[in-house]
Amino acid sequence: MNTFGKKLRLTTFGESHGKAMGGILDGVPAGIQLSMEIIERETARRRPGQSALVTARNEKDIPEFLSGLTDGMVTLGTPIAFMVRNTDQHSSDYADMERLYRPNHADYTYDMRYGIRDPRGGGRSSARETLNWVIGGAVARQLPCMAGISIAARIVSVGGVADSMEEMMKVVAQAKKDGDSVGGVVECVVSGLPAGLGNPVFGKLHARLAEAMMSINAAKGFEYGDGFAAASQHGTEQADIFTSQDGKITTLSNHSGGIQGGISNGQDIVMRIAFKPTPTLLRDLPTVDKAGHPATLRAKGRHDPCVALRAVPVVEAMAALTLADMLLER
Amino acid sequence: MNTFGKKLRLTTFGESHGKAMGGILDGVPAGIQLSMEIIERETARRRPGQSALVTARNEKDIPEFLSGLTDGMVTLGTPIAFMVRNTDQHSSDYADMERLYRPNHADYTYDMRYGIRDPRGGGRSSARETLNWVIGGAVARQLPCMAGISIAARIVSVGGVADSMEEMMKVVAQAKKDGDSVGGVVECVVSGLPAGLGNPVFGKLHARLAEAMMSINAAKGFEYGDGFAAASQHGTEQADIFTSQDGKITTLSNHSGGIQGGISNGQDIVMRIAFKPTPTLLRDLPTVDKAGHPATLRAKGRHDPCVALRAVPVVEAMAALTLADMLLER
Amino acid sequence: MNTFGKKLRLTTFGESHGKAMGGILDGVPAGIQLSMEIIERETARRRPGQSALVTARNEKDIPEFLSGLTDGMVTLGTPIAFMVRNTDQHSSDYADMERLYRPNHADYTYDMRYGIRDPRGGGRSSARETLNWVIGGAVARQLPCMAGISIAARIVSVGGVADSMEEMMKVVAQAKKDGDSVGGVVECVVSGLPAGLGNPVFGKLHARLAEAMMSINAAKGFEYGDGFAAASQHGTEQADIFTSQDGKITTLSNHSGGIQGGISNGQDIVMRIAFKPTPTLLRDLPTVDKAGHPATLRAKGRHDPCVALRAVPVVEAMAALTLADMLLER
Amino acid sequence: MNTFGKKLRLTTFGESHGKAMGGILDGVPAGIQLSMEIIERETARRRPGQSALVTARNEKDIPEFLSGLTDGMVTLGTPIAFMVRNTDQHSSDYADMERLYRPNHADYTYDMRYGIRDPRGGGRSSARETLNWVIGGAVARQLPCMAGISIAARIVSVGGVADSMEEMMKVVAQAKKDGDSVGGVVECVVSGLPAGLGNPVFGKLHARLAEAMMSINAAKGFEYGDGFAAASQHGTEQADIFTSQDGKITTLSNHSGGIQGGISNGQDIVMRIAFKPTPTLLRDLPTVDKAGHPATLRAKGRHDPCVALRAVPVVEAMAALTLADMLLER
Repeated sequence: MNTFGKKLRLTTFGESHGKAMGGILDGVPAGIQLSMEIIERETARRRPGQSALVTARNEKDIPEFLSGLTDGMVTLGTPIAFMVRNTDQHSSDYADMERLYRPNHADYTYDMRYGIRDPRGGGRSSARETLNWVIGGAVARQLPCMAGISIAARIVSVGGVADSMEEMMKVVAQAKKDGDSVGGVVECVVSGLPAGLGNPVFGKLHARLAEAMMSINAAKGFEYGDGFAAASQHGTEQADIFTSQDGKITTLSNHSGGIQGGISNGQDIVMRIAFKPTPTLLRDLPTVDKAGHPATLRAKGRHDPCVALRAVPVVEAMAALTLADMLLER
Repeated sequence: MNTFGKKLRLTTFGESHGKAMGGILDGVPAGIQLSMEIIERETARRRPGQSALVTARNEKDIPEFLSGLTDGMVTLGTPIAFMVRNTDQHSSDYADMERLYRPNHADYTYDMRYGIRDPRGGGRSSARETLNWVIGGAVARQLPCMAGISIAARIVSVGGVADSMEEMMKVVAQAKKDGDSVGGVVECVVSGLPAGLGNPVFGKLHARLAEAMMSINAAKGFEYGDGFAAASQHGTEQADIFTSQDGKITTLSNHSGGIQGGISNGQDIVMRIAFKPTPTLLRDLPTVDKAGHPATLRAKGRHDPCVALRAVPVVEAMAALTLADMLLER
Repeated sequence: MNTFGKKLRLTTFGESHGKAMGGILDGVPAGIQLSMEIIERETARRRPGQSALVTARNEKDIPEFLSGLTDGMVTLGTPIAFMVRNTDQHSSDYADMERLYRPNHADYTYDMRYGIRDPRGGGRSSARETLNWVIGGAVARQLPCMAGISIAARIVSVGGVADSMEEMMKVVAQAKKDGDSVGGVVECVVSGLPAGLGNPVFGKLHARLAEAMMSINAAKGFEYGDGFAAASQHGTEQADIFTSQDGKITTLSNHSGGIQGGISNGQDIVMRIAFKPTPTLLRDLPTVDKAGHPATLRAKGRHDPCVALRAVPVVEAMAALTLADMLLER
Repeated sequence: MNTFGKKLRLTTFGESHGKAMGGILDGVPAGIQLSMEIIERETARRRPGQSALVTARNEKDIPEFLSGLTDGMVTLGTPIAFMVRNTDQHSSDYADMERLYRPNHADYTYDMRYGIRDPRGGGRSSARETLNWVIGGAVARQLPCMAGISIAARIVSVGGVADSMEEMMKVVAQAKKDGDSVGGVVECVVSGLPAGLGNPVFGKLHARLAEAMMSINAAKGFEYGDGFAAASQHGTEQADIFTSQDGKITTLSNHSGGIQGGISNGQDIVMRIAFKPTPTLLRDLPTVDKAGHPATLRAKGRHDPCVALRAVPVVEAMAALTLADMLLER
């Protein structure tokens, strides 16, 4: 279960403290000129260590492409393999992890699932995996089927504060100071998507997007259009009345978030994803060890007070991979 | 894209105003005694026409099984095919549909997707498709891998009212009287699921559940555990502290909704799905016809003021299909 | 594992002595006018009981279509479900089967696989399943992507005799008289397939065809082009020299059977499939019962002295399903 | 289409003259101690340059594992990524390939399929891809589900000569001397496979094996049991009579090749694969260039007079991947 997509398939590998992260992107058409700058720009957006507010892991995160491209970055129609070696592993920071279960982390469930965990770190559950997705998404964005489609995500609330970016950053800074963390909501808007993408039963456009977004670490909820707010309203309030503009059928409002019956209607796709606060806190926490004995988890290591901030480019990457996959599938 | 599941696969067919609905459930192990009563009980829960508050379509909805079972309803390990003939079609009610686009319905997007629509009715976008899912889910619930697992959904708010079932029903009754409709939220709790189900990257337990739930007609949002509320909180508020009870590792709280890192932790799975108000209103509405000319959609036909009510058994069915699929896949 | 194809997917059901055979064909584009005559013609070609030489089971084998089509047989783009009720079941003929293992039949292996067998007959291992494939193939042949492509199979040898159809029929008649059976080879030629269909690694055109053909009951071997004979030759004998004809690149010979490197080259696809003699003989045979005790299998029931004869339309159907799937996938 | 398998999935990458070959093997259970020696032994068996009779490309072909394993080669249950850098590329040998179509090679069909070819060499159509399969197969052989199962392939005829290995090698040596090449047949026997593996409809054991074997470069035919010879025989000659030995049901003969109705019966699986002569000859050959103009392909470069010889470990690898996949799927 390390493959995402049907026609455009990203298969990934890499434990956070293993030798390398990477993946194979299969299904990319031949003859497309890719830009390495776009790929590096996206991995840079995701990279930790960009500001005092995000975790200090400092890796260049520039992929080496192993196949699928000419020397001049033109696609051959063959699988595109890429790899980023892990250089800054600090696995000693994670010594306790082998022994103790961290609250809200995947340590315990991972043990229940596999019976073995990479002694060097967070294994496949680490957010470092999302680097692979951002690289895949950066390629997906450049495909001809995505021409004219813009995907833009931004943080819309942090810890319940939605006023301004400045106010949100204050909440994050305070959490960092307190050794605490804070949740947030990311909104993603897709413009320029043609009408008619999606399926009426399984494979609904919003079901595919929900699956993609809920794959991102720390995601707790997904909604599109008016989402949960629509559940509090009446049909008369939610009706997107059809009209004709310049000979083109459109709607007067977009409560639907650009999707009706699982199929895009040509309006902007609007979706929001809720992220929980990072479970890693710079505080001592009570827990148990593998044998179930009480223990104390000592605060140390890197600390990322708000994963929602770093999720922004990941949300865009997963949207790009999902939409390119569905567009190629048509 | 009419197949759901990987190891337990439900492939469905049927236009709402065609000859029949039905499906093939593949992957059911051999030698299991099924109960027809459980299947009929579930289709009865979903059936319209049970009360004054839900739409009056009155079909028995009892499936005929065509294969996969002995005469005594023991599974043969071969595909289980079932069929429900459509007897109450009233396609004349839908005459306008061929010509006019109903707001928030799939009429327009369906035309964009296929270029042809079943002139007899809602095609595959109709909620009648969920009958197939309820039948599949009723079989899935009876599989040995589901023993000891309970799945219980209930409506938790209607039009923003969450006080009591009585208060919620008043809101629905008022909407019906007004020719209006109202949204609602369904909560589903899964108890008894063993720890270790799910995957750490793609195929996360909550991503699979999100995809399943977002496939249900009128679903607008999905969350698990504290969901969107978690995005407003701090890590210190969300920590599910591990403890030992009777030699078993458990947590003191369940903000996680029973899933950490995409894998079940043995606690209850808790999820909520937001449903929008039914787009069909008993009011005249402005719209356009296929050529884009202004038109009026006349109020008539059946009316279901709150689809969230009928979604309750559908949510359970999709949970059963998803979990049985993942349990068989292990 | 009852689904064939990726983009055009046929999911089938039915035990030979159950209520019905049938399937769901998903992935058919919308707006295609289908001909019921073509479908009935193909099922008639496959039908037993056409001559004294093939088994006497006498069913009409005309499918009822349950979905996916307008009343006038125009496709809706939705799944096409069909069903043929089993009317002539004679399950009493099969009473011994519950107890005794027939040589070269699937009785024993089926028990090893499922632990339960349909007490009424051959279950899913029966050649009656190929009726579903012929119906699916008859639809596939009519798709626009198949326009200009002809698929023609014929028997090329029976019991080692390849002289003329008359000689071959003598061999079959003699086998029937002797209560014996005889194997045969079917050749299938596909003309008009454009160059460029297939894949260079997995999903090679001939690998997909091999998988399809080896799915047919009693198939023992598959080859394309010069096949096994090529293994006895030298490269200088096998070279298909390129040339230009009327400005089009073609080859002077077709040892390759129309496929190079897994991809079609525009020449005729030529393949041959070996079928073993029917294992059912009208002779008493020694065998064992389920407990392993020696027993005698009494000769009785229907008898089909050469399954290869009836395989001809099935080979064409599987070719049509495979090629249409791959053409739609492009 | 660069993924093989369902539960055990090998996704591969690499152009023969690109930077590296490699793959991701997903679905390997956790906690298995792998042996690097077994992997190196298998890649060495496949490696060119071992004798005067096979092509002189001289690469070490030892994979670097990038993920999925502890430092001590214990599997983590996560995807196992591996890579072999291409060091001996000699792409100048292939200069003509850009311009001229080589008979029976994939040059022309590849152009028809993709419209672009790796200017550095054979792209994905090269037999170098099978290195990835041998590495994957060497891991598959070591899985616990394969314990007690032996897979042994050997060459049984070369250019029609089947007398002795010595005689066959003479045929190859003569072909090499003549700048010619010669075909061959590889037989593979699987012992120890339990009864009950396979499926009665699609996914028949022999259909899966046929697909796997026909994926190997230069494969032209596949048969199991008596194969094409069975098509020349009568049912009385082919009957594998059941008997009881030491309380275990077995058969007196194995015309079936260990498979009945698509499911293993506990006898040895016996299959044969026909390979055509290498299309590369050390002789000048007439051909056309991309524009269709007559041209001469000059003899040069490496020359492998009998690919069937090198196919032996590849046949075993594909058998191992297929069987491990199906055993894990059960």
